[in-house]
Amino acid sequence: MIALAEKVIRCCRHLSTMTEAPGRTTRTFLSPPMRDVHAELIQWMHELGMSTRIDAAGNLRGLWGDDHAARVIIGSHLDTVPNAGAFDGILGVVLGIALVETKPEMAVEVVGFSEEEGVRFGFPFVGSRAFTGTLGQDVDTVAPAIRAYGLDPDELPAARFSPCSAAYLEFHIEQGPILEHLNLPLGIVDRIVGQSRYQLSFTGNANHAGTTPMHLRNDALAAAAEWITEVERSPAEFAGLVATVGLLNVTPNAVNIVPGEVHASLDVRHALDPVRHSACKSLLGKANDAGQKRGVVVTHEIRLDQPAVPMDANLRDHLAKAAEIAGYPIHHMDSGAGHDAMIVAPHLPSAMLFLRSPGGISHHPDENVLAEDVAAALTVGAHFLGSYAHAG
Amino acid sequence: MIALAEKVIRCCRHLSTMTEAPGRTTRTFLSPPMRDVHAELIQWMHELGMSTRIDAAGNLRGLWGDDHAARVIIGSHLDTVPNAGAFDGILGVVLGIALVETKPEMAVEVVGFSEEEGVRFGFPFVGSRAFTGTLGQDVDTVAPAIRAYGLDPDELPAARFSPCSAAYLEFHIEQGPILEHLNLPLGIVDRIVGQSRYQLSFTGNANHAGTTPMHLRNDALAAAAEWITEVERSPAEFAGLVATVGLLNVTPNAVNIVPGEVHASLDVRHALDPVRHSACKSLLGKANDAGQKRGVVVTHEIRLDQPAVPMDANLRDHLAKAAEIAGYPIHHMDSGAGHDAMIVAPHLPSAMLFLRSPGGISHHPDENVLAEDVAAALTVGAHFLGSYAHAG
Repeated sequence: MIALAEKVIRCCRHLSTMTEAPGRTTRTFLSPPMRDVHAELIQWMHELGMSTRIDAAGNLRGLWGDDHAARVIIGSHLDTVPNAGAFDGILGVVLGIALVETKPEMAVEVVGFSEEEGVRFGFPFVGSRAFTGTLGQDVDTVAPAIRAYGLDPDELPAARFSPCSAAYLEFHIEQGPILEHLNLPLGIVDRIVGQSRYQLSFTGNANHAGTTPMHLRNDALAAAAEWITEVERSPAEFAGLVATVGLLNVTPNAVNIVPGEVHASLDVRHALDPVRHSACKSLLGKANDAGQKRGVVVTHEIRLDQPAVPMDANLRDHLAKAAEIAGYPIHHMDSGAGHDAMIVAPHLPSAMLFLRSPGGISHHPDENVLAEDVAAALTVGAHFLGSYAHAG
Repeated sequence: MIALAEKVIRCCRHLSTMTEAPGRTTRTFLSPPMRDVHAELIQWMHELGMSTRIDAAGNLRGLWGDDHAARVIIGSHLDTVPNAGAFDGILGVVLGIALVETKPEMAVEVVGFSEEEGVRFGFPFVGSRAFTGTLGQDVDTVAPAIRAYGLDPDELPAARFSPCSAAYLEFHIEQGPILEHLNLPLGIVDRIVGQSRYQLSFTGNANHAGTTPMHLRNDALAAAAEWITEVERSPAEFAGLVATVGLLNVTPNAVNIVPGEVHASLDVRHALDPVRHSACKSLLGKANDAGQKRGVVVTHEIRLDQPAVPMDANLRDHLAKAAEIAGYPIHHMDSGAGHDAMIVAPHLPSAMLFLRSPGGISHHPDENVLAEDVAAALTVGAHFLGSYAHAG
């Protein structure tokens, strides 16, 4: 499998040169370089005897086997963040095609979703939402881009998955340091964790930093800082919680003025929704406490409340058995990031297999994957398709 | 005195309409509206029988009395920050001219310094440094602006204060909430506090906020936040300390990315230089500690180390006696902000009288002063000039 794995990596590296931004990899929804990616992958799929099409959402669809046979969907996304690496998303599509090289017994549809990152329109999962018929009113926003690419938004209903689809499988780099930390090549995803996002405002008074004694201040940044230390400490109270203040803007942001206003984000993730909701309530309360001590008014707005999405138990077992047969250690883990599988899972039994991310790096040109890990994923994938064909 | 006080306030309000920015008050070093301010004040001074000139640094100079008699300098600055109020600086100049209306027995030179705020060239006190012959190599930077205004930088030596100068007195709004908090109109400045400024960098790793477990993070903002809570707490260890983190910039500053880098300012002020230096050492150590706990590297650069400047003890006594005679409570305080008096004090016996700042507000269009407080300052100033004439 190592030769095929190296071909997969070479292919991903080559596709990363198809970009809107010379010298870096940036490829948004239906941007011109997406045509080059489609052409390259379609040529390979045709060589393997697959039938192909681009659906009305710009998703690349390639079918191995009979159109009316029960099929496994193997998919991920072809778009990237700005200045991306070569593997996030597209590796899962290239791995799907590479698995067809092993001539699986059952029908396989490889899907390269047109949009997952949310860069072009500010909302994500355009491809997988079209695939599951859940684009809703966002159709109106993306329709002009679809037309400009030469596709017809009226044909979006035909982008929905075939009733012959039995399962959805997504290979993806972990985008985190856990597998590397454990020295493991692969991880079976149990759940995509739930996520809450808030925007908080701390409003105090912008006074002169030299002439305002400490006890007469309403320092918005001091209040926010105390709260950030509480956010960092929150997993002690809520085991398994991941909580981040990633964005913080200070006004007026001058060396000699006490900060009058701070805007900060809060991102909270947990595998169990009730724990996540309790943690958010607790952290919002602590923000208020930190404000009240200092005469700083704290307000918040909720921006996201995304429930946790479990992967299909039966498919997870199939993946675990495939890994066992292939001789790889079985490691179950949760995904802290959202993926197309999160969108597909409510509609089709879905599973994800993570590949180790060297350095935990993703969304960066240094993003990488090891050939031995890709070979492991191909081996497990081939065993999965074999066992699933016999089980089905 | 209340009628004269109201005239002072009307004059300041009128001068605040002389601005580079329509609808707000912005008047930087030798900007066009400075000519209008000069013309207005020169007209008033001529009406009072004063001789006037604009020196080569653009300072407005008005002399009451004989050129060879011992004189008291009454000065402050005519420039403003962007979007300023009507009183910071210029009130001290207008008050000086108004005191000449009381026909003091001794010679008085009113000086309207051309530059104190440091807006135009990024360094402050151009006017008072020319007045004390301490502009140094900054002459080269400001010379083109001096020439453009029609003045001759070669004549800067003649901008130095006359050998007949016996004392420097500066009236200024407090720019803080202390006098209002104590319900007092005036404060006698004992010292202008010393000040240290640092720029700190916290360098961790910018990782994915969903896929990076808390224990594998190097969160630069979490480290900075813990340190900011220590900065706020520092007066518990160093009584009288004023310490501020006013500026903080986060990189990459995105909701879903663990902050990889934080740049923050530290401003520390204290009346006693050894206490200030100990506090800075302690706070820089605490920044390192907060970083080390998290694998975040902390570095710092010093940007300012300005020693405390005491006001002249004899002049302070004169001011206190004048306040006593006038029937006002005597309140001694330190100035947390720098003023022209800080530059003049090493060269001439200097004193400052603060006027209450309603709401503690300054550097803002809402900046204000009460007519009764201006009347108090005028009364104390007149008594000061009377007693000083007899003492000298």
